[in-house]
Amino acid sequence: MDFRIEKDTMGPVEVPADKYWGAQTQRSVNNFKIGGVKHQMPIEIVHAFAILKKSAALTNADLGVMDQEKADIIARACDEILAGKLDDQFPLVVWQTGSGTQSNMNVNEVVAYRSHVLLGGSLQDEKKKIHPNDDVNKSQSSNDTFPTAMHIAAYKMVVGTTLPGVQKLRNTLKAKSDSFMEVVKIGRTHFMDATPLTLGQEFSGYVAQLDHAMRAIKNTLEHLSELALGGTAVGTGLNTPAGYAEKVAEKIAHFSGNPFVTAPNKFESLAAHDAIVETHGALKQLAVSLMKIANDIRMLSSGPRSGIGEILIPENEPGSSIMPGKVNPTQAEAMTMVCAQVIGNDTAVSIGGSNGHFELNVFKPMMVNNLLNSARLLGDACVSFNDNCAIGIEPNKPFIQRHLENSLMLVTALNTHIGYENAAKIAKKAHKEGTSLREAAIALDLLTSEQFDQWVKPEDMIGSLK
Amino acid sequence: MDFRIEKDTMGPVEVPADKYWGAQTQRSVNNFKIGGVKHQMPIEIVHAFAILKKSAALTNADLGVMDQEKADIIARACDEILAGKLDDQFPLVVWQTGSGTQSNMNVNEVVAYRSHVLLGGSLQDEKKKIHPNDDVNKSQSSNDTFPTAMHIAAYKMVVGTTLPGVQKLRNTLKAKSDSFMEVVKIGRTHFMDATPLTLGQEFSGYVAQLDHAMRAIKNTLEHLSELALGGTAVGTGLNTPAGYAEKVAEKIAHFSGNPFVTAPNKFESLAAHDAIVETHGALKQLAVSLMKIANDIRMLSSGPRSGIGEILIPENEPGSSIMPGKVNPTQAEAMTMVCAQVIGNDTAVSIGGSNGHFELNVFKPMMVNNLLNSARLLGDACVSFNDNCAIGIEPNKPFIQRHLENSLMLVTALNTHIGYENAAKIAKKAHKEGTSLREAAIALDLLTSEQFDQWVKPEDMIGSLK
Amino acid sequence: MDFRIEKDTMGPVEVPADKYWGAQTQRSVNNFKIGGVKHQMPIEIVHAFAILKKSAALTNADLGVMDQEKADIIARACDEILAGKLDDQFPLVVWQTGSGTQSNMNVNEVVAYRSHVLLGGSLQDEKKKIHPNDDVNKSQSSNDTFPTAMHIAAYKMVVGTTLPGVQKLRNTLKAKSDSFMEVVKIGRTHFMDATPLTLGQEFSGYVAQLDHAMRAIKNTLEHLSELALGGTAVGTGLNTPAGYAEKVAEKIAHFSGNPFVTAPNKFESLAAHDAIVETHGALKQLAVSLMKIANDIRMLSSGPRSGIGEILIPENEPGSSIMPGKVNPTQAEAMTMVCAQVIGNDTAVSIGGSNGHFELNVFKPMMVNNLLNSARLLGDACVSFNDNCAIGIEPNKPFIQRHLENSLMLVTALNTHIGYENAAKIAKKAHKEGTSLREAAIALDLLTSEQFDQWVKPEDMIGSLK
Amino acid sequence: MDFRIEKDTMGPVEVPADKYWGAQTQRSVNNFKIGGVKHQMPIEIVHAFAILKKSAALTNADLGVMDQEKADIIARACDEILAGKLDDQFPLVVWQTGSGTQSNMNVNEVVAYRSHVLLGGSLQDEKKKIHPNDDVNKSQSSNDTFPTAMHIAAYKMVVGTTLPGVQKLRNTLKAKSDSFMEVVKIGRTHFMDATPLTLGQEFSGYVAQLDHAMRAIKNTLEHLSELALGGTAVGTGLNTPAGYAEKVAEKIAHFSGNPFVTAPNKFESLAAHDAIVETHGALKQLAVSLMKIANDIRMLSSGPRSGIGEILIPENEPGSSIMPGKVNPTQAEAMTMVCAQVIGNDTAVSIGGSNGHFELNVFKPMMVNNLLNSARLLGDACVSFNDNCAIGIEPNKPFIQRHLENSLMLVTALNTHIGYENAAKIAKKAHKEGTSLREAAIALDLLTSEQFDQWVKPEDMIGSLK
Repeated sequence: MDFRIEKDTMGPVEVPADKYWGAQTQRSVNNFKIGGVKHQMPIEIVHAFAILKKSAALTNADLGVMDQEKADIIARACDEILAGKLDDQFPLVVWQTGSGTQSNMNVNEVVAYRSHVLLGGSLQDEKKKIHPNDDVNKSQSSNDTFPTAMHIAAYKMVVGTTLPGVQKLRNTLKAKSDSFMEVVKIGRTHFMDATPLTLGQEFSGYVAQLDHAMRAIKNTLEHLSELALGGTAVGTGLNTPAGYAEKVAEKIAHFSGNPFVTAPNKFESLAAHDAIVETHGALKQLAVSLMKIANDIRMLSSGPRSGIGEILIPENEPGSSIMPGKVNPTQAEAMTMVCAQVIGNDTAVSIGGSNGHFELNVFKPMMVNNLLNSARLLGDACVSFNDNCAIGIEPNKPFIQRHLENSLMLVTALNTHIGYENAAKIAKKAHKEGTSLREAAIALDLLTSEQFDQWVKPEDMIGSLK
Repeated sequence: MDFRIEKDTMGPVEVPADKYWGAQTQRSVNNFKIGGVKHQMPIEIVHAFAILKKSAALTNADLGVMDQEKADIIARACDEILAGKLDDQFPLVVWQTGSGTQSNMNVNEVVAYRSHVLLGGSLQDEKKKIHPNDDVNKSQSSNDTFPTAMHIAAYKMVVGTTLPGVQKLRNTLKAKSDSFMEVVKIGRTHFMDATPLTLGQEFSGYVAQLDHAMRAIKNTLEHLSELALGGTAVGTGLNTPAGYAEKVAEKIAHFSGNPFVTAPNKFESLAAHDAIVETHGALKQLAVSLMKIANDIRMLSSGPRSGIGEILIPENEPGSSIMPGKVNPTQAEAMTMVCAQVIGNDTAVSIGGSNGHFELNVFKPMMVNNLLNSARLLGDACVSFNDNCAIGIEPNKPFIQRHLENSLMLVTALNTHIGYENAAKIAKKAHKEGTSLREAAIALDLLTSEQFDQWVKPEDMIGSLK
Repeated sequence: MDFRIEKDTMGPVEVPADKYWGAQTQRSVNNFKIGGVKHQMPIEIVHAFAILKKSAALTNADLGVMDQEKADIIARACDEILAGKLDDQFPLVVWQTGSGTQSNMNVNEVVAYRSHVLLGGSLQDEKKKIHPNDDVNKSQSSNDTFPTAMHIAAYKMVVGTTLPGVQKLRNTLKAKSDSFMEVVKIGRTHFMDATPLTLGQEFSGYVAQLDHAMRAIKNTLEHLSELALGGTAVGTGLNTPAGYAEKVAEKIAHFSGNPFVTAPNKFESLAAHDAIVETHGALKQLAVSLMKIANDIRMLSSGPRSGIGEILIPENEPGSSIMPGKVNPTQAEAMTMVCAQVIGNDTAVSIGGSNGHFELNVFKPMMVNNLLNSARLLGDACVSFNDNCAIGIEPNKPFIQRHLENSLMLVTALNTHIGYENAAKIAKKAHKEGTSLREAAIALDLLTSEQFDQWVKPEDMIGSLK
Repeated sequence: MDFRIEKDTMGPVEVPADKYWGAQTQRSVNNFKIGGVKHQMPIEIVHAFAILKKSAALTNADLGVMDQEKADIIARACDEILAGKLDDQFPLVVWQTGSGTQSNMNVNEVVAYRSHVLLGGSLQDEKKKIHPNDDVNKSQSSNDTFPTAMHIAAYKMVVGTTLPGVQKLRNTLKAKSDSFMEVVKIGRTHFMDATPLTLGQEFSGYVAQLDHAMRAIKNTLEHLSELALGGTAVGTGLNTPAGYAEKVAEKIAHFSGNPFVTAPNKFESLAAHDAIVETHGALKQLAVSLMKIANDIRMLSSGPRSGIGEILIPENEPGSSIMPGKVNPTQAEAMTMVCAQVIGNDTAVSIGGSNGHFELNVFKPMMVNNLLNSARLLGDACVSFNDNCAIGIEPNKPFIQRHLENSLMLVTALNTHIGYENAAKIAKKAHKEGTSLREAAIALDLLTSEQFDQWVKPEDMIGSLK
């Protein structure tokens, strides 16, 4: 590989000749060989930085602390990043300095040196026309830029991937619920036979869970919309021009299309990442909901002959490398694995969030990496589960009918007529002797056959269907 | 011990002669010897049940399915429970059936048998005038009563203990922040010296954290205000009179003083406890915030001579059994232990929440036990930390001044005048040679002494003080 | 309440007149009102302290730094604690100083003042004949005594409660496995029908899990047997006589009956609690195993008519307050709730363990509280599950037979005869048309009826039964 | 892109013309679009599968159920995978079926079709000479191969990356401990000044932690060395020749170089992954230890002027994009972020481990992905921390000396001479008046200047230095 020499305040470093990054990026490449390529800083963070750097440059120009030409060329380089043209210029891993300084410098260097080239310079020039710190990082610090990029990337992932994915699945489950609303089936509590409900009612519970989960996620967006930018090194805004924080937040809102505002308290924004904890907490709640739903669906579809088997799910692939003809609830498995991961990620985020010290939390890259991972995995998994499983769910009516007819818990309908204890006698007798409830009831002389028919009607035991 | 015989649908059981509970409670005592007395069902759940049972009885009377006299006597027994007179009648542990059925029956039995005694009967009577199931549990199931009691108890603990505790601490920290707003001190990022801020600014970050935490908790109350009651066994409302769910929620709201409503979807309310997950998630966020704050305060107060020592905290007790005169940040330690516990409890709650099956989640007692524990511990710890630590915090001005004067990071003020790289040269030279920044700056001939004085003023580096 | 005045180095404090504790205990009572009586320091810690204080006093006498008479009276007071006579003298909560200093002082004060009374003095005497610090705490610090008490109490709980409980359940499951070894049943993978195995084989997996779990727990005991005592304030052993650490560990081993040794490195023993993390990690593994087992058992017993229903479990109590005759897997529910709690506790322990600083970890009381809770809950839950569920498990042969006969996965036996793809055709045809495998196989002309009978024998598909 | 058509039991699928994979792999690509390329199945699992498939083929040949030629060509294709030549043939993500069936089939297909090509065939041939199921998967099921691959990959990562990394860091810290053994410094408990110890003693605690952590990890390897292979679909070993399980384990041990054995109970090996839980639990313990160590080192190095500053760490990169000359403990930050992640991963692994059902745990890919990630991150982070931080740590003697001299806790040496209470008076007086201990002691007339000099010697307060 060819190298060129770049310098920072610590001296010269060999950098790959054809890369736009500089000395500080290279130091991080050299010093943090942890985890490998799968652990690179999420590209969403890089793209968020591009919005941020462009907004900062243009704000600097607006406020008279930067030439407009300089700001424009910086913005142009940022636009190239946003277009994905420079994605291979960001080699750093998540496991670097906890402030994300090295990724901020990676962006500063790439933007500066790409700008220099756009201005006609060469990467080999010792002196670049745009300086990573004095220009691209002007009116900024890693300490306010990295958390700003965290919020931009996180907000975008949540509203662009997570929520639409959940909404899609929710809508399918709602349509299924409506469609199954008249399908009376046995209920199950404690995994045991219980009084009946309809399959549509059962699914309506899933819909309610997802509606609550989405509302919980949306409740966190206000905190997530607060941007640290303008706080610089410790939250005081040192080295920023007057009005900068508000203006740069406006520009970021404009370029990102999300309703960002400047954080009312920058000290919190640097020293704590409670907004990330808060949003991830809501994602974790969603994971809890989805695990329940996916578990139910795989259990309801269990069989095909020796399980519960009350619903049919699409057969997407051969289920077994050894058992021919086996079909498995694979989408539910992917979903529940994702959910377990998200609950684990939540622990990691909480630990990171709780360990900030003084003016800076230094678990930033880890925290946002988990948030982006969880948000994407949940959104993707909802779409996958929706498209490859939920939309194809159908009731398996013969199984449903058989289970319903066999149920002893229909006896509950008799409570209000003959009392709990007499009803229990009937159920116990039928259970012990393997007979029907009707047979047991009549044998016990607790009611007549006509009364039984009149009182024990599954379709009357399911309340009103809304 | 004297016993009497009580019966349930499974047969006779020996019960302590003087206790109001009956057969089913006793079966649970016998069958679940797990954890001992510290693991008893929280009394808050019992009291919540009393509100619920009273409300249910009166609603049953209003709707014509129960005699008013019966309802009134049930309400009277419930009032005795609420007054704390029967607290020793609820011996069951959390580690029982996951639906909480046994605690529901414990309440049903105590209310029924106490009512019987209030009506002039004797505990020894084989037949009681009020029946635990047919009367006290009328129009109810464990499956809707226990989650209702969970929400009543949780809501009350959060608004009655957690939020006031946090608010108290927040107000003290706000007053400290205002009072310390002019105290300029060194900032610290990465545990390393950074640019200055004021002690009041530093504390303002804590206030912002707690404000966000309280808002996050309040955001969850709407979900928590939804009551399952009226769903009965599986959510369909079997065996309830028309209008029951709405009316009983109104009564519960009235008697509890909290704005409860009937849950729009009862299937979710029984099968999932996402509301508990959601509220506990917000408590966990609070724990994350408090751990950061408590850590900062103990580190800022570290010393007295060989630490950071920038604040003084009250000396409440001898700190060491061996080191005379030692004073420790004990309140911060209690607080951070509470926070660690709450984060762990959150994992337990998530696991419980994710493992509901079909029509019922059967991790109910564990989930609510954790919520009540976390909510109380956080509220109590905030009050303890406030009263015994926060209110007494004072700046240690000699240490603050010494640290500030020594700081090399004041050099940052020069960035906009001489550029980042030149400023770095000054800082590095001063660091290496152990001199002041001024000396290094002048030795490097990068600026004059007058310029240094004009540009490097800590009090100008802290932004605006709001 | 009557009070007397006690003093410590900070001045006088009002103490209940009839209590043995002194000024420092009372300060903690006053300053740490967190969580209430359920959150008191585990009595096991107090008893461990009694062993420790007795051992220290006698060692001090042996090594010539304490009068034998003084040591003997201290030992006598400790014996009273061990006999449970003074259990009401330890009012402090877990949420105190993170070093446990206040509980150490609570023990020091109670032992000193009880000794004073045993020597004929009165609690009202201003000057006591035995001093909490100079005598009872001699050659000790909270920093080495509290971790020593942690190890003593934890070791004892693990070997006295957890392991015997697990062993008991393991033995029952082994007996069941042996007894069910010939009961051929359908297997289930992905919750879906799979090739057969025997019920005994299925249960043998549970036995293997518990054997591994017990081995994992035992692997941690070596670390847990290391005692910090002798390290005093920071691990250096300041103020201890030569040979003290080894001798006092011997005495503790003697009095406790457990193989304790002095820790080879005292700095680790004070500053970190990796031994607690390690043992709790193994308890968490056990929780993971038990959750799997308990889940299986409740699912296998589901029904009675519309579930899987392959085993019968004891009916211990009425299962429902509304559904007459319902029986639920309540022991499995208690067990899985315990398991969820233990997994959550593990997170709390990890957070505490990771946050030690310099010479002392100050999450001690929280960590040991979780360990003792988890260890006891698991042990108790195993015994409860064993006695009230596992010992009564029986196969439900009609269900087992029906599921087995219906299974399509018996087709797997044909792979080696006609190939995976042809076998799949048979299974798919039978599934689609609701026929038997035999019918489908013959209709497809892939084998003869005789071949089918010869090749597809469930009892030949289960391998060797050991 | 060009496609060819491949078929499985569900019908034809379009597959990229130049890829070795077949229909089932492609179905998974199509049906599980979750997480993207960073979430691909770890290549270590693929390589473990190559060892496994080769071993299985050769064992099949040895036992007479496969032609030697067929086995040899399969082995050759596997060797190509092991040489990394086919790494781009495994596109599936972790978030697939929870049994890992699809990755097993991916390997089966690639090995089969590559073998076909090695035998002179073409990928476009409709019929291949080697069959993915009947040949490459012979005597196997996903249900025993995937867990086998999990153990192979996990074992290798732990012994090849984690343990060597920890050992390297441990050795450096041991050398530092030895080298710093005479450097007397102030101790700190509760973050507060305490009695002295040496820097070498302090570091010896870290060494002890890592020694314990390594022993704990090694304790888990026995369980991890047990292989599921031979259990096939549900643990019974259906469709395997006699002696297969033992022989194939021997071959895997031979080819991998690790001491694998066949699991004594295959039902456990498929249905539970307690071995993964166990090993990850030990990794989590290591994370707890490393977080303590890394925290200490960053706090000890804090400053350079206004912190604790007792050690110097290497300056590897500019620390700040805005504060010139700033150097940060970046390696400690990467380490602590890794530790937080590992603790979170442990929660995910526990949840996955606890949710196995009946004969199969279907959280396999998620569990092993976390184990491999955690094991690698910890190993890499140890090496990075070692090479870029630990090896360069040096004592900052001026700071150490200043802190030591200032310390009030040297007063503890007087306990045995004048009693705890008198010693406390001295410390309090000195603290209050800002004087030295000596001055306060003499002013209080509690001892002479000579006695002070004789009794208060830091170098006598540190015990014996081993």
